[in-house]
Amino acid sequence: MTGPRYTDLVASLPASVPFVGPEVQERARNAPFRARLGANENVFGPSPFAIAAMQDEAAEAWKYADPSHLDLKSALAGRLDCRIDNILLGEGIDGLLGYLVRLLVAQGDAVVTSDGAYPTFNYHVTGFGGQLHKVPYKGDHEDLGALIDKAREVDAKVVYLANPDNPMGSWHGARAIEAALDDLPDGCILALDEAYVEFAPEGTAPRIDPEDPRVVRFRTFSKAYGLAGMRVGYAIAAADTIRAFDRIRNHFAMSRLGLAGALAALEDETWLEEVLRLVAASRDEIGRIAAANGLTALPSATNFVAVDCGSDGAFARRVLEGLAREGVFVRMPFVAPQDRCIRISAGRPEDMAILSEALPVALAIARQARVD
Amino acid sequence: MTGPRYTDLVASLPASVPFVGPEVQERARNAPFRARLGANENVFGPSPFAIAAMQDEAAEAWKYADPSHLDLKSALAGRLDCRIDNILLGEGIDGLLGYLVRLLVAQGDAVVTSDGAYPTFNYHVTGFGGQLHKVPYKGDHEDLGALIDKAREVDAKVVYLANPDNPMGSWHGARAIEAALDDLPDGCILALDEAYVEFAPEGTAPRIDPEDPRVVRFRTFSKAYGLAGMRVGYAIAAADTIRAFDRIRNHFAMSRLGLAGALAALEDETWLEEVLRLVAASRDEIGRIAAANGLTALPSATNFVAVDCGSDGAFARRVLEGLAREGVFVRMPFVAPQDRCIRISAGRPEDMAILSEALPVALAIARQARVD
Repeated sequence: MTGPRYTDLVASLPASVPFVGPEVQERARNAPFRARLGANENVFGPSPFAIAAMQDEAAEAWKYADPSHLDLKSALAGRLDCRIDNILLGEGIDGLLGYLVRLLVAQGDAVVTSDGAYPTFNYHVTGFGGQLHKVPYKGDHEDLGALIDKAREVDAKVVYLANPDNPMGSWHGARAIEAALDDLPDGCILALDEAYVEFAPEGTAPRIDPEDPRVVRFRTFSKAYGLAGMRVGYAIAAADTIRAFDRIRNHFAMSRLGLAGALAALEDETWLEEVLRLVAASRDEIGRIAAANGLTALPSATNFVAVDCGSDGAFARRVLEGLAREGVFVRMPFVAPQDRCIRISAGRPEDMAILSEALPVALAIARQARVD
Repeated sequence: MTGPRYTDLVASLPASVPFVGPEVQERARNAPFRARLGANENVFGPSPFAIAAMQDEAAEAWKYADPSHLDLKSALAGRLDCRIDNILLGEGIDGLLGYLVRLLVAQGDAVVTSDGAYPTFNYHVTGFGGQLHKVPYKGDHEDLGALIDKAREVDAKVVYLANPDNPMGSWHGARAIEAALDDLPDGCILALDEAYVEFAPEGTAPRIDPEDPRVVRFRTFSKAYGLAGMRVGYAIAAADTIRAFDRIRNHFAMSRLGLAGALAALEDETWLEEVLRLVAASRDEIGRIAAANGLTALPSATNFVAVDCGSDGAFARRVLEGLAREGVFVRMPFVAPQDRCIRISAGRPEDMAILSEALPVALAIARQARVD
């Protein structure tokens, strides 16, 4: 009686999980976190109209969602000034990145990213047998020139760039991205992750012809629109590229309530503006709390702030663990020297009050451990 | 300026879509269907408690769902008398079948299914480069012996079986499945799709040790639990097999509201029993309507009925198209001789009244066309 015969590729993969949810820690501490500031969720929540739309749709949950997703794609196309067939909806950017990698990456194919950038992208590349080539950050920014140079050197099929960046919150202006696109070697496409772009200063999102075959942009309703729990991401690309996804994707992966919520969220621009204002205020408050504790908040174009704890990764990890003990969920970069920071999501005033109370305690414990 | 370099496999794939939703036809006819009986959805809807749970959770949609899915897995483990790590949740059975195929099937690997069985499984096998071997139905049943023999002959890594079957509604008893499992060649696993098992007579679901490494069972909240629009399926398998999915799956594919709805639906056994009663009554009514029109309803262990239109596939397709013109959405099998049937999902009395009115019209048109 034998078991499954996995593919050689699958047999070679680590039993890895890209992210462990805060619920694991919550079960271990037997209490929920007091402040949930680790996953860059939008604690201000979705538009009240999005909540109402999902509630109204709940009784219709027995029907499969329209697999063509036409209503939401139409609304997005109007907003983005592109055609419906330049848009693909999917089960979060995570799902869409997986499909992109599957389209492009066979075993041994080269892929370029920054060392310390989004681990779920790397998870997909490894999962399809791709060869990851990583270039270091430069001054806490993803290094556009180095990414392009490396892509040329290794004949990469895809180069990943998050703009604004996660986990550092740094960003490049539109012109720099447009110039990088022009430098991209032939046959290499740019996977441009714009999960946080709504939070960024005007002039961050590059102007790219939707029919440009060199780029696939990724956006989401998980961050500025407050619908992380509904799994609604989208890609913008040339119609030919979008059609290629139809060969492999799960056509029935989207939930009916997620689509209804996202449509209502997209239409409520007033709420979006309010969220952006609240997030900006919270970024400032995180900066003040950091400074009051002798730490430096890095500039951010996102709904989170990387706070430089002034030492090394081991120290920052102790701060993070201290915060967790105080009931504050945060995460941190994986790679030096960015791992000198902890990454704190924007929160409500009550979340900030808890952070303000917890951070000095966590720092004292972390500094004590260093002395011991 | 060149575009993406797809993998050789992707470049070889057809631009196929497993199913087109009824919304495409609805847009073409510029009106919704009067009776939605084509996708084996549960028109009786989810439990009122599931609706309420999703509505209550809507304001929490800003949080990612717990990627360990512990709450729902715990409830399922209790119900199924297995351990939590024998269960995997995923974005519908469609998503889970895709992951299973990815785990097992490299280019050229052999896979066995029935000719005319679930096309989305075939879509995944083709999408990962597998070689599909199909055996015919036998008396409108999937042919267990032929499936096993073919699996041995071609050294298949996986054999697909739906029990009860879709699209015919036929089924095998538990003993026959258990015997087939014992006949399975070494190194071949059974993908046992039990999407409709809740509707089947007692004694249909085989008794299988959850740690049996030869089988992965698939179940869903889309059918008996009325949550097709929420994309919540699950697999039951040996813990080692379940862990393998963690190497490749999208860990953040499930929606928070889907998980909340599914948990509440699972706990409402009273509603489930009511649905089963209503579905059984509707199956009988479909049988009466068929008989009144000189057609034969096949026995069904599902929430749909295959109705033999008494001629060939071309005739059945005309009946189906006539029904669509009358505002009734149904589907039909793809392959002869099963394509002599149309497949009608169970509905409410008002759906059945519309069917009863539309079927003679559709039949008259279909018969007229045959004469012309």
